[in-house]
Amino acid sequence: VADVAVLGAAGYAGAVAAALLHRHPGFELRHVTARTDAGTRLDAVHPRTRVPLELEPPSTELDVDAAVVAYPHGAAAPVVAALLERGVRVVDLSADFRLHALETYEEWYGEHGAPELLAEAVYGLPELHRDDVRDARLVANPGCYPTAAILALAPLARAGLLGDVVIDAKSGVSGAGREPSHAKHFVTVDETVMPYKVGGHRHTPEIEQELGGGPRVTFTPHLVPVSHGELVSCYVMPTEAVDAAALYRDAYEGEPWVEVVEGPPGMTEVRETNFCRISVHDDPRTGRLIVFATIDNLYKGTSSQAVQNLNLMFGLDESVGLPA
Amino acid sequence: VADVAVLGAAGYAGAVAAALLHRHPGFELRHVTARTDAGTRLDAVHPRTRVPLELEPPSTELDVDAAVVAYPHGAAAPVVAALLERGVRVVDLSADFRLHALETYEEWYGEHGAPELLAEAVYGLPELHRDDVRDARLVANPGCYPTAAILALAPLARAGLLGDVVIDAKSGVSGAGREPSHAKHFVTVDETVMPYKVGGHRHTPEIEQELGGGPRVTFTPHLVPVSHGELVSCYVMPTEAVDAAALYRDAYEGEPWVEVVEGPPGMTEVRETNFCRISVHDDPRTGRLIVFATIDNLYKGTSSQAVQNLNLMFGLDESVGLPA
Amino acid sequence: VADVAVLGAAGYAGAVAAALLHRHPGFELRHVTARTDAGTRLDAVHPRTRVPLELEPPSTELDVDAAVVAYPHGAAAPVVAALLERGVRVVDLSADFRLHALETYEEWYGEHGAPELLAEAVYGLPELHRDDVRDARLVANPGCYPTAAILALAPLARAGLLGDVVIDAKSGVSGAGREPSHAKHFVTVDETVMPYKVGGHRHTPEIEQELGGGPRVTFTPHLVPVSHGELVSCYVMPTEAVDAAALYRDAYEGEPWVEVVEGPPGMTEVRETNFCRISVHDDPRTGRLIVFATIDNLYKGTSSQAVQNLNLMFGLDESVGLPA
Amino acid sequence: VADVAVLGAAGYAGAVAAALLHRHPGFELRHVTARTDAGTRLDAVHPRTRVPLELEPPSTELDVDAAVVAYPHGAAAPVVAALLERGVRVVDLSADFRLHALETYEEWYGEHGAPELLAEAVYGLPELHRDDVRDARLVANPGCYPTAAILALAPLARAGLLGDVVIDAKSGVSGAGREPSHAKHFVTVDETVMPYKVGGHRHTPEIEQELGGGPRVTFTPHLVPVSHGELVSCYVMPTEAVDAAALYRDAYEGEPWVEVVEGPPGMTEVRETNFCRISVHDDPRTGRLIVFATIDNLYKGTSSQAVQNLNLMFGLDESVGLPA
Repeated sequence: VADVAVLGAAGYAGAVAAALLHRHPGFELRHVTARTDAGTRLDAVHPRTRVPLELEPPSTELDVDAAVVAYPHGAAAPVVAALLERGVRVVDLSADFRLHALETYEEWYGEHGAPELLAEAVYGLPELHRDDVRDARLVANPGCYPTAAILALAPLARAGLLGDVVIDAKSGVSGAGREPSHAKHFVTVDETVMPYKVGGHRHTPEIEQELGGGPRVTFTPHLVPVSHGELVSCYVMPTEAVDAAALYRDAYEGEPWVEVVEGPPGMTEVRETNFCRISVHDDPRTGRLIVFATIDNLYKGTSSQAVQNLNLMFGLDESVGLPA
Repeated sequence: VADVAVLGAAGYAGAVAAALLHRHPGFELRHVTARTDAGTRLDAVHPRTRVPLELEPPSTELDVDAAVVAYPHGAAAPVVAALLERGVRVVDLSADFRLHALETYEEWYGEHGAPELLAEAVYGLPELHRDDVRDARLVANPGCYPTAAILALAPLARAGLLGDVVIDAKSGVSGAGREPSHAKHFVTVDETVMPYKVGGHRHTPEIEQELGGGPRVTFTPHLVPVSHGELVSCYVMPTEAVDAAALYRDAYEGEPWVEVVEGPPGMTEVRETNFCRISVHDDPRTGRLIVFATIDNLYKGTSSQAVQNLNLMFGLDESVGLPA
Repeated sequence: VADVAVLGAAGYAGAVAAALLHRHPGFELRHVTARTDAGTRLDAVHPRTRVPLELEPPSTELDVDAAVVAYPHGAAAPVVAALLERGVRVVDLSADFRLHALETYEEWYGEHGAPELLAEAVYGLPELHRDDVRDARLVANPGCYPTAAILALAPLARAGLLGDVVIDAKSGVSGAGREPSHAKHFVTVDETVMPYKVGGHRHTPEIEQELGGGPRVTFTPHLVPVSHGELVSCYVMPTEAVDAAALYRDAYEGEPWVEVVEGPPGMTEVRETNFCRISVHDDPRTGRLIVFATIDNLYKGTSSQAVQNLNLMFGLDESVGLPA
Repeated sequence: VADVAVLGAAGYAGAVAAALLHRHPGFELRHVTARTDAGTRLDAVHPRTRVPLELEPPSTELDVDAAVVAYPHGAAAPVVAALLERGVRVVDLSADFRLHALETYEEWYGEHGAPELLAEAVYGLPELHRDDVRDARLVANPGCYPTAAILALAPLARAGLLGDVVIDAKSGVSGAGREPSHAKHFVTVDETVMPYKVGGHRHTPEIEQELGGGPRVTFTPHLVPVSHGELVSCYVMPTEAVDAAALYRDAYEGEPWVEVVEGPPGMTEVRETNFCRISVHDDPRTGRLIVFATIDNLYKGTSSQAVQNLNLMFGLDESVGLPA
């Protein structure tokens, strides 16, 4: 049983990670930290977690084997570096180590706090990089949109069939974080659908990197009146004709957490689970393929995927402790 | 003051049409009919309408100057024919007279009940066919998705700039009608987004017709947990570079019910109004244009647009009695 | 046509008041002010209002005949005093002038900023105090919960039948204001019902005052996942047997904005209108009466009621410009 | 490992019971039956269950040790009788065996299909009747409202302190079942709160029975726009002064599934778990006590409670396989 900590446990993602690790037979959750709410018990801030640990002030001086870092982009890098320095293996939920190319990071996020670690960071999508994750000191946990979008498009990308791509994504509000704002006020979100970051969401380069360059991706997220859940609708003109249904079944055969289904999937089918559900459809009149993928942005999109990565890193069964 | 009737007033669209016409200074609502609920007052079935008229059994023997027909596709055609026969001018909310080509209708809907009327029917999108509506005996009121999609894309289509098009549409549940079903059960819809009729929604040919043929349109509707409201997100690769913002401002200058705005619009901005809000955005990395249009599916998408058409047909100010 | 201003127009209540007055044939909306967002147009902050006026910084130096003051409790009193000083008639949306007894105000709200005005302030519930409102310089617009609760219970109170009262109230989130907070975050509110201010909500003394003292009122508000709308469920053990249905019909006969209905009313029946819908029911097994009243908290509960008061104050038809 | 069946597994409650038993280490789910959807796999009808068993046509000829019967009231009794006849132990989710007095059943539900079994049926609220459940052949699983209401009021009832009681209950829509209807249409439920069965809900006698007679209970349920979740707000005038906080803490000390908390609890805190959360508050101005209890109506309110009862009946740890 390895000792773990969750840094930044007062946010939505950190709290879910803490709840999963607290009940996990292979890990012992030793510390939860938070910038705000330090001194309060986690189950007072997030009653659903039922984690009775007290939130400690931010620190990297933690005697643990592994840590989940749930810090904002930019703030995560130095914390991750300090933990690695102490010999702590890290799953980082931020974007800081997801992009291999430093200049791409700088273009989208600004200065990088620990560029020397970029080379060794493993992009933590187990379905694509399972073996690298096992040996990693530092796993960059994918963004929620990229998790769904890459799983939706990887079979076509690997087969070299990926033409231009339009991704129209719909996300529940927890994806935007717990910090109160006008945009997340109930009255703003209720009874509407709101496109945002049109033509420039930071998850775009992450998706393009994992699809192997090539296609020009238009990625447009929309906020929907849902707490958690994410659906990506992907429109692809394949470079040649393909039996997409067979391609997808083969691609994900044996994958424990990817379900290829016939009908289009809805968010509630995967809510609070580590599953990603995918369906692929022909649009006979245009020749396009339409691929849907749905995940829970806080689970497979973030925190249960972090635990999936930790399982791999510590030689456990990949699925132990993951919510089904 | 012209006498009007609403046939099929127990459904959502018919009820809104009745409510608008009941308060309209230029029309006198004389009859409301319904297959179910006949004998009940409309305000008992739909309290929000506050229309105290009793629902009458279905009939076309009505002494009125005009009628709004809110019948299902297929059932509307013979009713419309009978009304025209009596000299009643008609705004038909069904799809029966929207498509000019009989074979296209038959392909998507089956046999047509009054094909001889197709030639004279006017497609009732005032922003495109205002003059024809004025003189029409029979106006085919556009579908809700086509209203938003065509208004979103018409400026590019008219400028000959429309390349291939992907339309990802999101609709509130009232768009699916009032008949109870598993798909419209609160528990089914809540906390999810559901794609439906993937690769084959009947509104596709209607959109293509009004965009002037040419582009291959992929149209995918999604059900969202919202009562009424509709957003179409349109992705277009223009055939040449264009100052889209200027194009759209010019195209809709002076239009009373189309608002071209800068930021992406949300459904609540137009809820229970006759407005359509549109924004157009460059996706600099791919060259695509992204156009959003939002309407209330029961208002500009159906019933207030029907009243807008009636206003034109009876020589009234186009905007009188329309909800702002 | 009287000139009016709305002070504090960036909040939900102020924005609705501005929207109604901007379209009102009897008033000319001259100024809208706001602490935040000054310099921005109101229709940029609240697109639905479609009020193109620029928000001005807070000021009482306004040349208008009347003002709606939409300030927080405590902050309103000095502003109201300054406006009256200039000869401006005021409808105050805050609690500052609702309670006749200074000591009750101090007990629930703290020090009062203009106690000398308490005596002349009229409690602006037109159904109870219509004549006093007509002549008032200063109208204290009722709270949203008291509007519904008092209208629900006044017939029993006036008949001397009111025994002990339990009021279980449910409110949409806009009732809690526009300021972002954890409590109003979409994720907090969605899929739950949350009691708050249990045993001590400040609207309690306002309800008791208008019911004429006597009964011990337990008032418990609950936040529900709804944008606007309010339902109060009132449980009363009457002091003697009564034909409650007849009592209520008589009490509100001729009232333009109170609808006594048979079945229990739902929030959507009055949404974005000035109506209050009431039903009264016997609980045969216990002898209790159960009274429901529903309003839109931003309309009859606040801003359209403010306009109703302004109509009375300026000798207009009480109902002109009110949303039905 | 005992063999079990779920009869009526296509409804919401049956599906949750099947999902829990399918994963339960102490039971083997052998059969799922359904009136509709027979021949379909349960995971096709309810994807979230991920139970790959095929729904069988209704039958009581099942070779199992125990069955959960999820039939409507009235239809359950003969099915239960047939199962008992075969030696199958039963947890019945209907109301058919909850009321001890036949005449009370007949008054509220009509004729009883197996009155001879009433005497031996145990009311399956483990917190009150744990020992009787262990030995029962037939457990009548409590209604969802009674589960919350009785747990909320039992400590006062047992202490003889329960004066008259008002219970204002709020329930998510799944509590009304899966059968489509106007009342459960998304558009009907969204953005409103609807009281129903005012003055006569069938759960009233069940609550009164378990509270030991005495108090006159007014019970009023409201439908809220939530999928699952239930909150009861109970208003009690105690017969004498009491330290309610201490009384409740003591009453539920050691209970694994009842959490007494300080602040009022919200539905999401217990969603998809077997927990019931309770808080008790003084209303100092009136002397009333206000008690809140929240459960998930499909879990502690129905199906996970059924599994809790099965655990007791088969000598397992009471909490095994229950969702936390």
